[in-house]
Amino acid sequence: MEFSSKLLENAVYEMSQLPSIGKRTALRLVLHLLQQPKEQTDRLAFALQNLRSEIKHCKNCFNISDLEVCEICSNPMRNRKVICVVEDIRDVMAIESTGQFKGNYHVLGGIISPMDGVGPSDLYIEPLVDKVKKGEVEELIFALSASMEGDTTNFYIFKQLEGVEIKVSTIARGISVGDELQYADEVTLGRSILNRIPFEQSLKG
Amino acid sequence: MEFSSKLLENAVYEMSQLPSIGKRTALRLVLHLLQQPKEQTDRLAFALQNLRSEIKHCKNCFNISDLEVCEICSNPMRNRKVICVVEDIRDVMAIESTGQFKGNYHVLGGIISPMDGVGPSDLYIEPLVDKVKKGEVEELIFALSASMEGDTTNFYIFKQLEGVEIKVSTIARGISVGDELQYADEVTLGRSILNRIPFEQSLKG
Ligand SMILES: [Zn+2]
Ligand SMILES: [Zn+2]
Repeated sequence: MEFSSKLLENAVYEMSQLPSIGKRTALRLVLHLLQQPKEQTDRLAFALQNLRSEIKHCKNCFNISDLEVCEICSNPMRNRKVICVVEDIRDVMAIESTGQFKGNYHVLGGIISPMDGVGPSDLYIEPLVDKVKKGEVEELIFALSASMEGDTTNFYIFKQLEGVEIKVSTIARGISVGDELQYADEVTLGRSILNRIPFEQSLKG
Repeated sequence: MEFSSKLLENAVYEMSQLPSIGKRTALRLVLHLLQQPKEQTDRLAFALQNLRSEIKHCKNCFNISDLEVCEICSNPMRNRKVICVVEDIRDVMAIESTGQFKGNYHVLGGIISPMDGVGPSDLYIEPLVDKVKKGEVEELIFALSASMEGDTTNFYIFKQLEGVEIKVSTIARGISVGDELQYADEVTLGRSILNRIPFEQSLKG
């Protein structure tokens, strides 16, 4: 693609660095911004930069948060002794929208995936194990994707907790194997949390 | 979609204002930026704002340009008496990449489309007609999309030039009717410029 404008070329290049946005799509998006009032571009730029520089990770559950401790963790009505282990904020949003879960979360920030170079030390697994070993948790609910990577991550954490007395369950697989959690419908997802099964039992299936 | 972070919600909202970017896609793009170094977000924000505030329209052809007069218009090797009329910069880029055209362009900034509320006065038609009436042009080549809107626009300009002695042609329709110009392959597009036909002749087909 040959540009007659360096300003345009640069904007298209940066836009095309986003996942699944090719050069042609990036050009379409950027030309759209040029046709809108300048304020729209300013708002977009400011919102992205503000997010990137101000966002925090909750020091308790590691979810993305505007505050040091997120709204869920600081809510006294929620049961801190039941912790749902998820991959990222999209899973928290999906489970919250079911209205079926009143415990806390622990956000791993990903799942173990040797193919993508993601190992246990790249994830927030250690603080979870620490929390459990301190006796602060009665039940862990694994709510990772029903994929090989999800199963590997579940099993890795489970092994770390050997000898610790704690109830460990996984959400019921009403969600078809291979599906990503965040795309499950609310009813299926809500039901799969209510019908969670002990983790050891899931290993036999 | 319920967000636990206002910063995230705001960034997703602004991103989803872009065409064909839904809320879910916007969330994926924004979360990606959070996983990248802060500099990537800064570069994107700066590139978009810089483009939006610094970009000009060439005062000769109305193409997007970093300068008052674009590189094509200021190139003495190009024939200013042959002008190719296009919808937007993507068409200029597509035709330039064929290497078949050595004249100048005139960018309308769109095509007449009553459905979208775009009339002749919303486009750079008047300066084109002025230029022709001043006798600065020997040939106009219409290279608009082969759609009803493209045909309407061609015809509108053609009528404005009644009584003016000028050669008016349209690019040969090797491009299938209904296809957008920017998606044509380079060979087809290059050939359709070489094989352009007088505009009156195209009205008979
Ligand atoms: Zn939290
Ligand atoms: Zn120009």
